[in-house]
Amino acid sequence: MQIHRVVRDMVTSKRNFWLAAKSLRVVEDCTGNLEVALDPIGAKPGDFVVTIGVSAARIAAGNPKITTDLTIGGIIDHWDEESWRG
Amino acid sequence: MQIHRVVRDMVTSKRNFWLAAKSLRVVEDCTGNLEVALDPIGAKPGDFVVTIGVSAARIAAGNPKITTDLTIGGIIDHWDEESWRG
Amino acid sequence: MQIHRVVRDMVTSKRNFWLAAKSLRVVEDCTGNLEVALDPIGAKPGDFVVTIGVSAARIAAGNPKITTDLTIGGIIDHWDEESWRG
Amino acid sequence: MQIHRVVRDMVTSKRNFWLAAKSLRVVEDCTGNLEVALDPIGAKPGDFVVTIGVSAARIAAGNPKITTDLTIGGIIDHWDEESWRG
Amino acid sequence: MQIHRVVRDMVTSKRNFWLAAKSLRVVEDCTGNLEVALDPIGAKPGDFVVTIGVSAARIAAGNPKITTDLTIGGIIDHWDEESWRG
Repeated sequence: MQIHRVVRDMVTSKRNFWLAAKSLRVVEDCTGNLEVALDPIGAKPGDFVVTIGVSAARIAAGNPKITTDLTIGGIIDHWDEESWRG
Repeated sequence: MQIHRVVRDMVTSKRNFWLAAKSLRVVEDCTGNLEVALDPIGAKPGDFVVTIGVSAARIAAGNPKITTDLTIGGIIDHWDEESWRG
Repeated sequence: MQIHRVVRDMVTSKRNFWLAAKSLRVVEDCTGNLEVALDPIGAKPGDFVVTIGVSAARIAAGNPKITTDLTIGGIIDHWDEESWRG
Repeated sequence: MQIHRVVRDMVTSKRNFWLAAKSLRVVEDCTGNLEVALDPIGAKPGDFVVTIGVSAARIAAGNPKITTDLTIGGIIDHWDEESWRG
Repeated sequence: MQIHRVVRDMVTSKRNFWLAAKSLRVVEDCTGNLEVALDPIGAKPGDFVVTIGVSAARIAAGNPKITTDLTIGGIIDHWDEESWRG
């Protein structure tokens, strides 16, 4: 699993059926690289989160038909952003 | 999920059976690296899209027998290309 | 899916049962990095191909028991090698 | 499978149901890049471990419903940290 | 699939149940990066091998319950190490 920081919500006009009603967040890794994660937990911008990839992402979404390859699995209590960015 | 920009259509003469009637697009990431994504939504060149990988890509294609490992899952409404390219 | 160029055949003396009778090709990406792909289509050295990864690679091989993680899914009609190598 | 060093425990306040009662460890690779692994074995900070990814990570967790994409699969007896870091 | 060179055996004291009786090898890619692969074929240090990843790795291990994400699928007859390392 990876450590990401939530940047903001992701708004899309046309969207795949199984993603249609889901919360998507833009997240960044320690190098600033952006990805998009499904959020079944309710993370806010600035939160550090543990993200789950591959087939486990679909299970973590609560329904394996949900077409996600990255899902937020937990909110990290304390994280040292400065040492993370290196 | 990743953020990609649609570059153009991908034309192939000989193609796997399960991909045969599908729309394929050449997409690029923020570094200009090219990949090929199945497009069940109808994105146009220049659109910024959310792409879905691994086993979720097959489900997002509408039929898990479709042999894709990257499928366009949504068209992003507004995206700041300049900050994306960094 | 990725864009690869076929380099040559891959010859192996001892091989996994499910790969035993299959055509394997050495392929390269735009940086010259080499991988090995199963080829159910019949691509020739120099051909540019679309390759399919993860679980979709097994389906594209025609039988999900075939132990491939990269399968050639189509031959690209025209590809600009110079702009690809950047 | 990858070779990781256990750095410390990962504490999260809100967590996915299937991860709720599991031990998570922050692990680093030879470049210092951090990831999070589920630990069904009981590794301690400083241990070098073999980590298992993709769908095998769920099986290694003891229950394929457990939403992990990286699971500690073994503790390495002796490992030369200096040559590993290169 | 990837091209790896076998470096040595991997010895672990505590190990996941499904890996317990299996041969594990430390392998390196063309940049010297180390990974660990399950070896159902019997490769020796110095051999160049084709390795199989993701879910296909479990099938190549002979039993999809075996928790591997990288399995040796064949021994390469002749490989030019110097051009491989670039």
